[in-house]
Amino acid sequence: MSREYSRQLAQIALGKHKAQLVFKNAQVIQVFTNEILTADIAVQDGIIIGVGRYQGEAEIDLSGKYVCPGFIDAHLHLESTLVNPGELILQAGLTGTTTFIVDPHEAANVAGTAGIDYILSETEDTEANVYVMIPSCVPSGPNEDNGHHLTIAEMRQYLEHPRVLGLGEVMDCQAVLDGEDQMLEKLRLFGSKKLDGHAGYLGEKETGCYALSGIQTDHECCTYEDALREMRTGMQILIREGTGAKNLEGILTGIIDNQIPCHQLAFCTDDKHIEDIREQGHISYNVRRAIELGMPPIEAIKIATLYPAKCYGLKHLGAIAPGYQADLLVFSDMEEIKVEAVYYKGKRLDPTKHRHRNIPAELRDTVHIKWKGREELRLFLQGTESPVIELVPGQILTRNIRERVNVQQGEFIADQVYQKLVVLERHHGTGKKEMGIVKGFFLQNGAIASTVAHDSHNLIAVGDNDEDMCRAIEALIKCGGGYVVVESGKEPLILPLEIMGLISTWDYEQVSKMTRQMLVVAHKMGVPADVDPFITLSFLSLPVIPQVRLTTRGLYDVMKGNFII
Amino acid sequence: MSREYSRQLAQIALGKHKAQLVFKNAQVIQVFTNEILTADIAVQDGIIIGVGRYQGEAEIDLSGKYVCPGFIDAHLHLESTLVNPGELILQAGLTGTTTFIVDPHEAANVAGTAGIDYILSETEDTEANVYVMIPSCVPSGPNEDNGHHLTIAEMRQYLEHPRVLGLGEVMDCQAVLDGEDQMLEKLRLFGSKKLDGHAGYLGEKETGCYALSGIQTDHECCTYEDALREMRTGMQILIREGTGAKNLEGILTGIIDNQIPCHQLAFCTDDKHIEDIREQGHISYNVRRAIELGMPPIEAIKIATLYPAKCYGLKHLGAIAPGYQADLLVFSDMEEIKVEAVYYKGKRLDPTKHRHRNIPAELRDTVHIKWKGREELRLFLQGTESPVIELVPGQILTRNIRERVNVQQGEFIADQVYQKLVVLERHHGTGKKEMGIVKGFFLQNGAIASTVAHDSHNLIAVGDNDEDMCRAIEALIKCGGGYVVVESGKEPLILPLEIMGLISTWDYEQVSKMTRQMLVVAHKMGVPADVDPFITLSFLSLPVIPQVRLTTRGLYDVMKGNFII
Repeated sequence: MSREYSRQLAQIALGKHKAQLVFKNAQVIQVFTNEILTADIAVQDGIIIGVGRYQGEAEIDLSGKYVCPGFIDAHLHLESTLVNPGELILQAGLTGTTTFIVDPHEAANVAGTAGIDYILSETEDTEANVYVMIPSCVPSGPNEDNGHHLTIAEMRQYLEHPRVLGLGEVMDCQAVLDGEDQMLEKLRLFGSKKLDGHAGYLGEKETGCYALSGIQTDHECCTYEDALREMRTGMQILIREGTGAKNLEGILTGIIDNQIPCHQLAFCTDDKHIEDIREQGHISYNVRRAIELGMPPIEAIKIATLYPAKCYGLKHLGAIAPGYQADLLVFSDMEEIKVEAVYYKGKRLDPTKHRHRNIPAELRDTVHIKWKGREELRLFLQGTESPVIELVPGQILTRNIRERVNVQQGEFIADQVYQKLVVLERHHGTGKKEMGIVKGFFLQNGAIASTVAHDSHNLIAVGDNDEDMCRAIEALIKCGGGYVVVESGKEPLILPLEIMGLISTWDYEQVSKMTRQMLVVAHKMGVPADVDPFITLSFLSLPVIPQVRLTTRGLYDVMKGNFII
Repeated sequence: MSREYSRQLAQIALGKHKAQLVFKNAQVIQVFTNEILTADIAVQDGIIIGVGRYQGEAEIDLSGKYVCPGFIDAHLHLESTLVNPGELILQAGLTGTTTFIVDPHEAANVAGTAGIDYILSETEDTEANVYVMIPSCVPSGPNEDNGHHLTIAEMRQYLEHPRVLGLGEVMDCQAVLDGEDQMLEKLRLFGSKKLDGHAGYLGEKETGCYALSGIQTDHECCTYEDALREMRTGMQILIREGTGAKNLEGILTGIIDNQIPCHQLAFCTDDKHIEDIREQGHISYNVRRAIELGMPPIEAIKIATLYPAKCYGLKHLGAIAPGYQADLLVFSDMEEIKVEAVYYKGKRLDPTKHRHRNIPAELRDTVHIKWKGREELRLFLQGTESPVIELVPGQILTRNIRERVNVQQGEFIADQVYQKLVVLERHHGTGKKEMGIVKGFFLQNGAIASTVAHDSHNLIAVGDNDEDMCRAIEALIKCGGGYVVVESGKEPLILPLEIMGLISTWDYEQVSKMTRQMLVVAHKMGVPADVDPFITLSFLSLPVIPQVRLTTRGLYDVMKGNFII
């Protein structure tokens, strides 16, 4: 900033020159003092210059309206919503989230630094503040066949990036407690920045040990007790309310009842589908829910603004005061917080604005499978008893059971109860392939497949016959990844996710329309009404969630920490 | 920290190895959750490793005792108390202050970088955390003859010092509002660090403009209204309760009554005499006073611990949690907070420990006056009317008056009402000298002189006869600066302040004894009982406090901003 420009801003602040833009007569939510002040907000070049009585070249009258700082999502994955980052940011932005602290964990698992660079470049000039935490655990474990092993040397490249705030969710808690060399090196490397955690379930001493390593936040707490145990160590609790995980009520009820101060809290969504964002709101929904539970409205707003800004060292965000960025939300009711207008750097968000959908060449062609055809899907068993993955209704947990299944001439034949599951390594064409049997999907006369399968994002398919499964797999190989639903005898429904096999180039409306259509067909084919087959599939290969998972290396017993022979 | 050592700490945190030291069964003040938890505190190498149930090689039972984090003084001047920094830190430390954020403003005015280096080196291995803010306004104004003009190049040298947190109190508010080049450069230079303010009295727009410059704290607020106006800009209010300025009740009464949140507050003393520290406590007194006024005790403790630690980015201080430094205070009563034991890095403070009193050679001989003798003190007037500096009882303010005084053959003769005041440039032997007439001192048959005179610290003397004034001045020239009281016909009382003319090498007990003795004599000679002649003298040359001051360049009208011809 030139000195001349500094002096010009000072003149505006002193009221000697007009500001470019003044919001007049607003009810300003004052996060530093918990007041609501009737005042004008003077803005120059996207920065708040003064709060008081001001005149502007342009003026917007906000008489009778409340204004608060833009909301902050303290932890989310932009690439988990099928749509381009710009799509998600715009839709969430329109509901009041102006700052996104993202962990490009999925992108890194598929494409390494190219995936991280994609998230950075796609968010470079979005109408939002987007910060990045560098993924800490890629791959998520030693037995994973993912697209890229993110090395410490690669992580180091991002240390000086102005939008990189620190290290992404440290999921490998045991490595922290054991003080494994690689983990200690990552923690040291990002030690002067922010270290995000992922440890809601640890015991008291383990939680303390985890915090001692320097990890300062966690978004995995599900209950008040989890949150309290971690808050006592000084960790910031990022209260998550997304599409899948909903932890807000469980945590905030206890916080409110026990009058625990809120300065160690923040809000996040982790993963929230765009349809849910449009229906409920994004961080605005967390704020509204908190108020419904009895949180004083200004305190709920501070959990969405000032506290995360302070936690992540974002000195220019989270408040309406001189020098802060003019990210402002306008609403009429302190209980509902129904956001009527969103200003980012003093400019109103435009829902019709051109949305990015760049596809870097190296992220386009990421599905590489050594595929010989339908014969590959035959599953031969020793005897008629077999290990089975049983879905637990309403949860992403599974049960590790062993049951008698339909076997003909040594070959497993799917039926109404037991279907076939296959995972194919899809990054490097290694030909790695494992099959298993799943109970609880109830899929009849068809197959469903996806290249979104946490965290390694291999190709996963389920079906009750090899022909449809083969069609599904081949469709995904052909389109470069995506979702597919095959109903016997009919044309497959395909949602291409050309970008890393994770993200579509379509508008969210098209994505939404196709996924709805797919769900209708899947449920028609027998998938229980409360099961989203794609979400279920996406977790069936993640070997950190109890009790049993199928990966490219076999059936994994999560409880015992080994493969089932 | 080596990986092996990290693993060792983790093992202790997990309870698998004993810690060096465990405080058992304490009532731990939990600043993150506002709880009081019965727990053990495990300490290794001065760091808290765990809070819960632990066993130690050594154990200290604290059953029935409360433990809170060591207190932080967010702003003070170590060199304003006549004693060596180590003396002050020890005495304040014993009352519970374990962290000192100091501004070596006086030292810099006398000796520039040598003065700053002295404060840094004297505090290098004290049993306290001492951080330094680099003085921003040395000299304090363009018309000052101080010892050293601290250049931006010199300030830059301290940017990377691990104990330098930022820029010291920016007193020249007008330069900030006007955007003067030098000031903008200083603000830019320290812009990524903390910028301390000094602006309690500005109007609303001026306060906003001042905050816009990036200044983030202020310790000059006297009233709740001052504090609130600045808090709204996001500034942290360092509530001052020292020997001279007592702002705590004025500010906190309003904060409590209006339920303003406290996270934008901190405590400081600015200047507090060692006798007052020993009688009342230091920051512990601020905490106790806050509780007396109705502040919940844990919140009062947080204003002295967590909030200033967060404000100044001291991540390892201000809480009792894993990874935090084991600076701990033990007490028995949540209302009184009478500190019974102080642990710094897990070691109990030892009141008998050797105290530093190094005297760097370049700080020893700082009084250089071109002095020709008593003849220099003759004051000739045009007529019998003269400008007079009138003291305002009980305040450091003065009145600018013009009165008829005793003149014989054109020469002013002091009497019971009007005494002579002289200021001599004492740094560079320039011979600059100015005289004036003061009313309200009531000094008879003697003289008092000092080399402590804010901010330039020239030699200032007052007396009713030239002979005693001459003896006083010559005594200070001879001893290298200090305080002196001369009673006609008696041996002068001298407190040598050999270090920069500001600091004694004596123990505080000796200093205390001598200053008490001097006060007795001064009051016997007519100085009103409620006037400390040294404090009064020390401000009579500071041309920023209304209405009139005498400097080495003449009688200065503070209200008009010019010299009185």
